[in-house]
Amino acid sequence: MKPAPSVLALSGGVGGAKLALGLQRVLPPGGLAVLVNTGDDFTHLGLRICPDLDTVLYTLAGVVHPKQGWGRDAETFGFMDELRRQGGPDWFLLGDRDLVLHIERTRRLAAGERLTQLTADFARRFGVPTLLLPMADSEVATLLDTDAGALEFQHYFVRLRCEPRVRGLAFAGAAQARPPEELATVLRSAALRAIIVAPSNPFLSIDPMLAVPGMRAALRAARVPVVAVSPLIGGRAVKGPTAKIMGELGLAADTASIARHYAGLIDGLVVDEADADEARALGLPFTVTRTLMRDDADRERVARAALHLAARLADATSVPTAAASTGRSP
Amino acid sequence: MKPAPSVLALSGGVGGAKLALGLQRVLPPGGLAVLVNTGDDFTHLGLRICPDLDTVLYTLAGVVHPKQGWGRDAETFGFMDELRRQGGPDWFLLGDRDLVLHIERTRRLAAGERLTQLTADFARRFGVPTLLLPMADSEVATLLDTDAGALEFQHYFVRLRCEPRVRGLAFAGAAQARPPEELATVLRSAALRAIIVAPSNPFLSIDPMLAVPGMRAALRAARVPVVAVSPLIGGRAVKGPTAKIMGELGLAADTASIARHYAGLIDGLVVDEADADEARALGLPFTVTRTLMRDDADRERVARAALHLAARLADATSVPTAAASTGRSP
Repeated sequence: MKPAPSVLALSGGVGGAKLALGLQRVLPPGGLAVLVNTGDDFTHLGLRICPDLDTVLYTLAGVVHPKQGWGRDAETFGFMDELRRQGGPDWFLLGDRDLVLHIERTRRLAAGERLTQLTADFARRFGVPTLLLPMADSEVATLLDTDAGALEFQHYFVRLRCEPRVRGLAFAGAAQARPPEELATVLRSAALRAIIVAPSNPFLSIDPMLAVPGMRAALRAARVPVVAVSPLIGGRAVKGPTAKIMGELGLAADTASIARHYAGLIDGLVVDEADADEARALGLPFTVTRTLMRDDADRERVARAALHLAARLADATSVPTAAASTGRSP
Repeated sequence: MKPAPSVLALSGGVGGAKLALGLQRVLPPGGLAVLVNTGDDFTHLGLRICPDLDTVLYTLAGVVHPKQGWGRDAETFGFMDELRRQGGPDWFLLGDRDLVLHIERTRRLAAGERLTQLTADFARRFGVPTLLLPMADSEVATLLDTDAGALEFQHYFVRLRCEPRVRGLAFAGAAQARPPEELATVLRSAALRAIIVAPSNPFLSIDPMLAVPGMRAALRAARVPVVAVSPLIGGRAVKGPTAKIMGELGLAADTASIARHYAGLIDGLVVDEADADEARALGLPFTVTRTLMRDDADRERVARAALHLAARLADATSVPTAAASTGRSP
């Protein structure tokens, strides 16, 4: 029998996948489950595309494009060249190797298979020891209310390169969605020790998961420490529009805003060295490390920091916040 | 307004496409319509694939693989490599450029578009001046009864390389199929001068079209000469299993068998120089040329031979068979 995961990570795409890889590297095989955002998913050219699931899969399988952080390494673009030549939409890049998953997923979903089932099968196929879980089997679509009108996620994110100003977000289909039963199994397992919220965009990547009815309650009901890794370093995002969106939504792009956003969900926060002073003022258990993840040593360090903070919080369940006192302001 | 086609060709894949290209080259733009076999079509990896339509399209567009006679020139195989690596079925080769048509066709068919409409659009996209017509909009599947059991066409043709012995053929869905309305328009047009049956496999490529109810009658009702180009040269097929299947079905692989097979449909036959003596004994108008088509000069020569025979037959409508007397035995 496979060992039950001791850690559940919540992840979006590139940044979250890097931490997931760090966790996979420091945990024994099968010790990690990753709950992945599917609010970015869309149907393009008739194909069902799940960018965050694929980014996490490719990253954990060691076949992700090393510079981009998404898509395949050693990729070719014959399909895309030809699509462009024939006048097809060319704003969303689809590599020839990458197409295998999209075509296979589209076929299997049409045949009635659940996204959770086929995602687990894809992970097996790539030799990934981690359990990959979409946040729901039914479709949820992140919609952005912007100064350029209502936009589906990929149109905002890829086609318009996050340029429109965001006024609000909605998650279409979330009310009808349910967490997959496989997640409940992980959360109910006695093996579970920690839930780690990856440094993904809280608004675009983590909130869609939390918008699924029952998700917050299910995470809390696991009764293990929930630790987030802040996506900001000195008030800036490593990649992507986190800080830009926070400004547009009237929030300061700082650690306090992140802590406030996750209030009620998390028990502790991992922050970058640049944000140590800010973190001391929060009244929330925290730990400090360099959170920029450029190589596997970085990914493992941040993973260990998050796991250690969770372990400290768990060791002091009677007085949970005291456990992280070493990281708190005196 | 586009000129109405003066010639309708009936074609399967590689061999038929070569003659269609010859006809396209000797006729004015828009002067040709090609009715294409769709009995080879199948759904693979969830994609609707129409091998003969695509072969004719690529050939007429000048982008076919010059050696193979099917598939794209300058093709790449990143998708196929990756599919194989992931353990997917690799017996049917799908190039990266080629995938554009399959994916687009699958999407548009699912959206309710007719195959005839989207095929015409594909031809426009590739700058092909010829009207491409699938034999029907609904699905028809050529099934082979063989000593290896019942086989779908592509499994017989590609996966098993035509090795099983054929005992019989059936065209599933043919009884429910109808020729597309666009074909009726071509056949009713006063511009139509000739119908040319390409040197495709009579059993695998032409018979599926003739199995569509009303097809034979519609072709005859056009009241223009119907001329076939024999697929045999000295009792052998240029390519493919025509002669092998004829033997397995208890037919001699000769010109007389071809003429008998098309009896009631054709008014004349184009045969290779090697078969001139045989043709003289048939009591059917015929003409002789070298029917092997290796280059465009060959393709144009065979096209002209077929058109000249049809013109001679048309010039003598009162005594149709006398028109071809120059080609008949004295």
